[in-house]
Amino acid sequence: MSSPEPSSGRPGPTSPASPAGRPGPAGRPGHRGAPLPEPSVIPENGWHCAHYFYRFRREALSARLSAECQSQFKAALHPAAELAPERLASYWTSGHRADFGVMIMDPDPAKVDAVHQRILAPPLGQFVEASWSFVSMSEVSEYVPSIEEYEKRLIAGGEVAGSPEVAAKVAAYERRLPIMNEQRIRPEFPEWPAACFYPMNKSRVVGANWFTEPFSRRNKMMAEHAQSGMAFAGKVSQLISVGVGIDDWEWMVTLWGRNPEYLKEIVYKMRFDEASAKYGEFGPFYVGYRASAEEILEHCQLK
Amino acid sequence: MSSPEPSSGRPGPTSPASPAGRPGPAGRPGHRGAPLPEPSVIPENGWHCAHYFYRFRREALSARLSAECQSQFKAALHPAAELAPERLASYWTSGHRADFGVMIMDPDPAKVDAVHQRILAPPLGQFVEASWSFVSMSEVSEYVPSIEEYEKRLIAGGEVAGSPEVAAKVAAYERRLPIMNEQRIRPEFPEWPAACFYPMNKSRVVGANWFTEPFSRRNKMMAEHAQSGMAFAGKVSQLISVGVGIDDWEWMVTLWGRNPEYLKEIVYKMRFDEASAKYGEFGPFYVGYRASAEEILEHCQLK
Amino acid sequence: MSSPEPSSGRPGPTSPASPAGRPGPAGRPGHRGAPLPEPSVIPENGWHCAHYFYRFRREALSARLSAECQSQFKAALHPAAELAPERLASYWTSGHRADFGVMIMDPDPAKVDAVHQRILAPPLGQFVEASWSFVSMSEVSEYVPSIEEYEKRLIAGGEVAGSPEVAAKVAAYERRLPIMNEQRIRPEFPEWPAACFYPMNKSRVVGANWFTEPFSRRNKMMAEHAQSGMAFAGKVSQLISVGVGIDDWEWMVTLWGRNPEYLKEIVYKMRFDEASAKYGEFGPFYVGYRASAEEILEHCQLK
Amino acid sequence: MSSPEPSSGRPGPTSPASPAGRPGPAGRPGHRGAPLPEPSVIPENGWHCAHYFYRFRREALSARLSAECQSQFKAALHPAAELAPERLASYWTSGHRADFGVMIMDPDPAKVDAVHQRILAPPLGQFVEASWSFVSMSEVSEYVPSIEEYEKRLIAGGEVAGSPEVAAKVAAYERRLPIMNEQRIRPEFPEWPAACFYPMNKSRVVGANWFTEPFSRRNKMMAEHAQSGMAFAGKVSQLISVGVGIDDWEWMVTLWGRNPEYLKEIVYKMRFDEASAKYGEFGPFYVGYRASAEEILEHCQLK
Amino acid sequence: MSSPEPSSGRPGPTSPASPAGRPGPAGRPGHRGAPLPEPSVIPENGWHCAHYFYRFRREALSARLSAECQSQFKAALHPAAELAPERLASYWTSGHRADFGVMIMDPDPAKVDAVHQRILAPPLGQFVEASWSFVSMSEVSEYVPSIEEYEKRLIAGGEVAGSPEVAAKVAAYERRLPIMNEQRIRPEFPEWPAACFYPMNKSRVVGANWFTEPFSRRNKMMAEHAQSGMAFAGKVSQLISVGVGIDDWEWMVTLWGRNPEYLKEIVYKMRFDEASAKYGEFGPFYVGYRASAEEILEHCQLK
Repeated sequence: MSSPEPSSGRPGPTSPASPAGRPGPAGRPGHRGAPLPEPSVIPENGWHCAHYFYRFRREALSARLSAECQSQFKAALHPAAELAPERLASYWTSGHRADFGVMIMDPDPAKVDAVHQRILAPPLGQFVEASWSFVSMSEVSEYVPSIEEYEKRLIAGGEVAGSPEVAAKVAAYERRLPIMNEQRIRPEFPEWPAACFYPMNKSRVVGANWFTEPFSRRNKMMAEHAQSGMAFAGKVSQLISVGVGIDDWEWMVTLWGRNPEYLKEIVYKMRFDEASAKYGEFGPFYVGYRASAEEILEHCQLK
Repeated sequence: MSSPEPSSGRPGPTSPASPAGRPGPAGRPGHRGAPLPEPSVIPENGWHCAHYFYRFRREALSARLSAECQSQFKAALHPAAELAPERLASYWTSGHRADFGVMIMDPDPAKVDAVHQRILAPPLGQFVEASWSFVSMSEVSEYVPSIEEYEKRLIAGGEVAGSPEVAAKVAAYERRLPIMNEQRIRPEFPEWPAACFYPMNKSRVVGANWFTEPFSRRNKMMAEHAQSGMAFAGKVSQLISVGVGIDDWEWMVTLWGRNPEYLKEIVYKMRFDEASAKYGEFGPFYVGYRASAEEILEHCQLK
Repeated sequence: MSSPEPSSGRPGPTSPASPAGRPGPAGRPGHRGAPLPEPSVIPENGWHCAHYFYRFRREALSARLSAECQSQFKAALHPAAELAPERLASYWTSGHRADFGVMIMDPDPAKVDAVHQRILAPPLGQFVEASWSFVSMSEVSEYVPSIEEYEKRLIAGGEVAGSPEVAAKVAAYERRLPIMNEQRIRPEFPEWPAACFYPMNKSRVVGANWFTEPFSRRNKMMAEHAQSGMAFAGKVSQLISVGVGIDDWEWMVTLWGRNPEYLKEIVYKMRFDEASAKYGEFGPFYVGYRASAEEILEHCQLK
Repeated sequence: MSSPEPSSGRPGPTSPASPAGRPGPAGRPGHRGAPLPEPSVIPENGWHCAHYFYRFRREALSARLSAECQSQFKAALHPAAELAPERLASYWTSGHRADFGVMIMDPDPAKVDAVHQRILAPPLGQFVEASWSFVSMSEVSEYVPSIEEYEKRLIAGGEVAGSPEVAAKVAAYERRLPIMNEQRIRPEFPEWPAACFYPMNKSRVVGANWFTEPFSRRNKMMAEHAQSGMAFAGKVSQLISVGVGIDDWEWMVTLWGRNPEYLKEIVYKMRFDEASAKYGEFGPFYVGYRASAEEILEHCQLK
Repeated sequence: MSSPEPSSGRPGPTSPASPAGRPGPAGRPGHRGAPLPEPSVIPENGWHCAHYFYRFRREALSARLSAECQSQFKAALHPAAELAPERLASYWTSGHRADFGVMIMDPDPAKVDAVHQRILAPPLGQFVEASWSFVSMSEVSEYVPSIEEYEKRLIAGGEVAGSPEVAAKVAAYERRLPIMNEQRIRPEFPEWPAACFYPMNKSRVVGANWFTEPFSRRNKMMAEHAQSGMAFAGKVSQLISVGVGIDDWEWMVTLWGRNPEYLKEIVYKMRFDEASAKYGEFGPFYVGYRASAEEILEHCQLK
């Protein structure tokens, strides 16, 4: 029988360590001779991210939540608590699947998951059920244009090569890029009142296989897709985090909206972009409204 | 790796605020220089809408519902209660998945969801389980013809351009359109005894991709589809609300029927329209019969 | 955004009432000027039908069912009880999903569902779980040949037009048709010991889309399909009821068999008919054996 | 609307009884004039078969099973008990979905299901949950070659028509066939230690539709497929039973293995046969290891 | 009706034992005359493997786990306990579906499953729910190049046939191959802090059917795929085990990572290989972080 992803057939003297084999001592030279970093759960680039959705187990609640449980709930969701992760935002959610959701980011996956564990710890855990979650990591996408690519796009868009205008725009992009990338890796969460969350894949069906398209074509579709989003500047803010290899979908999309209406509008508009229309596969959608632990308890009539 | 919907590559000086970036202060100039509205959960156009379906947890009921629970149930479903949303209608539902359903509309999503929370609050919540729901927003579809498009369609349909007949019809449409749009955004719910509810998508499969069709072709198919519905005037009334970006399907269809037979007939007839036959993807169907809280309790033998 | 099934674009003076609009007073003139019937849950043509499948909640049964629960069970399933629907048949079912099933028909959907509610009412409801159901309506299919079509088919099949043989057959069909249609709308349930139940759709995939085929071709395939069933006259009896618009599948198939073997054989044979082979999409199959409430309790060792 | 499998259009005087109609009295002449057998749940050809898989409800077990429950368990699974079906074998199963499985065959479906009912009867039923099952019937497949077909295949395979070798082989097949068919209908279960169980369909997708292929081509593919299995003589023994019309898949495959390794190997090898590679659709796979009731309790640490 | 995988049509004198027939006595000559091994659950080649994922049943935990339950948990997960299997590693897992996972290997399937049974045994089993599992077997894939194939690939890659360099590389491969195969069959589990687990199939859809491709083409794709993995030597280690015939997916992939970031990167990179992009079908992904029983209890706040 077959191994679909065998590590076999790796010829050549530069491959002393088998990927399938026992790992050597930490810090020893890797495949290309560069020393490998120490084993760690902290990514070199990117933060761990998790989206958790919960419903209160009303079947077990003959009365409002006890004071002890309410305190536990508020402590678990407090974004500035002592053991809190770098980022934490909570939302009450519409629909029967969940009563509230929490979005968390931190370099350490254990600190991210600890929020979930604090919610589920006794005694509060008796009255809460996790209905869905998605774990991912932040990163700078391969489709983010470099300074050079940015300049090329300007010229391809009709601007005059070597002109002061182009030079000024490139310089501005050069100043903006590190800030934008920082926001992609370690984003500040906006205080806007609405947000929606959904995972997605790029399709691999016969006739619409994203992963067999060359980079140039994928890059072009992603640039057009980005252009679509520009009309929503100031209305919608987004984070794309990566679930490939660690959860059931390839990407997680977080959209924060100045108004829930804009969330509906941007997703509808983008669905006509080739990248989405032809290749997008979407998982469950959750809509949430920014709320503190206290506000969630109040909205859910459990306070 | 890749971000499927990156905010990158946004060149140009009119884009000071990154969609992925920290939102600026409320009310500051937006992308096109127009001032943005204050952050809010109330849509500028459209109301929030929710369909909730529930079953009584018979496994937990050794006797009829207590008087306290019955009172809570009637209060939660009362369409004219103090905190009630703008629209609220309740139905007993056929089939094992749900015993009753509630359809709700209001500008404020928290007022919509509050009905759900009142049903699930202790102590009644111990005996009720939400089996399905769909959250959406009302809107005027892009396929609703403008006055000009309406006139063009008349002429394309054989009427004489510039004739008094056309002028009269256009004038009538001009009077009717605001009323019809009001009904699309803030509909009155008919008192008819039957209704069915189902979500739907437009397909994006290879060979039948709605979202890669040009607007003109989609518009034509939607006009034909609307024509199909005309045979049911006085028999069936409908509301199409939008779930794109906020729930798992793109649209929610509510059909109210003078008789349940007409619901079966209209859906069957419309399934042969190209817009449905080729592109329609349908989710779960629920059929409901208009009933007050009291009537639901009686029907479910819990009173 | 778009409404997939908008009521817009309805031009013309004969359309005073918007399907999306507020319904007028009952009995007012409809679209074509004919007076509309009073709002009602009773179909003009066809009966409501429901198939319910249940399992006993063994996890909650430390001993046999109490005498009170057994009495409630027998009363709920009694086909001749005072409030019983027009038709009611019960079956014990094979397989882990259900212990028993009930098939019900009546003009009034509330009388149909009342059987379900009687089973789930306290105290018996604590020990019963509905595992699946399907609600539908009976009707005379558009593919049932009229007298004229029947005569045409005889001649197309080689018989001599105008011959006494054809005249005799047509006369016989004319006598038989009302009886057959009565049986389609208000069927007597056979006393045969076995039955199987399953819902189905006609596919709308690219390359096999039933709903884009012209009526003539669909009619021909259905006639061939009917022909397949003829070999089972006296062995299998069927009812096709319609779920379009009111439940998740388009049709519900009930097959009663003189022997369970014939159920297996007819479904296998028919699967090769083009109507099934190419267009049939099938849901869950349940097999049941005719049994009274008492026999079900005995079979399930709960008596 | 339409009936997908209407009984309509049945012309001709030999069709006095409508398949959709009320069945006539038992034993009356059938469609072809041959008297029909009495209504019965016992098939004329083939036995009823069921595969049941269960998990112990550990959430309800604060201690080992009581002596009473253990006795009930052993009695229910005893293959030689007074009311036991003709065939009964039990297995402990690997994986989280089930702790044990039971395979049962008998002419009477009530005797087959009685084993399931005995396991679920109080008080043991409180601690057992049926996780999956499949009901089917045994039969001799239409692809089993007749004596004549067998001879033709020999000659097509290069043997000399009319030769003594062919005559001897045909004679041997003639002796073997009834034994093999008996084993297909009323199989003895091997005592081998491992088994795997899975249901399957033949696909009807566009481009790979088994049911639109002519018999000759299906027969050829099945013969090749049978050839694949020959390499496993003495290692793997199989039973194919039919679920068409009575459960959710068309066939149930039971493979008994002298070693679990062979189960993995035969399924992998056969997956490359056209009949499987192109047309096979597979359901859940369960692997089991032969064990008595006592051994299951011991393995599950509940004794 | 049809048997999809009949054992019929097996002509020829070398086939005295029907695969569908009663097995002969152990050790008798098999199909090719070679004596068959004794019936056994221990594979001749390969170990049994299982991946188990669990969540703590917080709904049942009003306080931390009792000391007795904690002891039971630590004993069950102890890799060096008396009855422990050959390999056992435990992980806390991110996401709502599971709190922890265990990966186990042993020649005896009962020893593998015993770990699962020890976790679920009373009293601990009341507080633990198995959320997912996969059972598989280790093996040496048919795509692992033999010494001869390895030499051919070197020459096809541009090296000079008969040169000392080629001879040296071949000799090295000859020394390495048994070690690599040992690692494929009886792998040592690396101590790296992160791991991800997911099952997969090779697709059989029309237009992308892995199983109708010739071996040469599959082999080439697998070699390219292996090449992709080489960039991760020292960063990622893998095991591919086989589920064909014994669980719902064809293969189980285990990736151990020096850093969780590498898991994300390798799966993303490999998704562009033809073997994955076109043919890979992936099941649920679980990410885990190496942890002892004690650390899991601590992370889950149940200690």
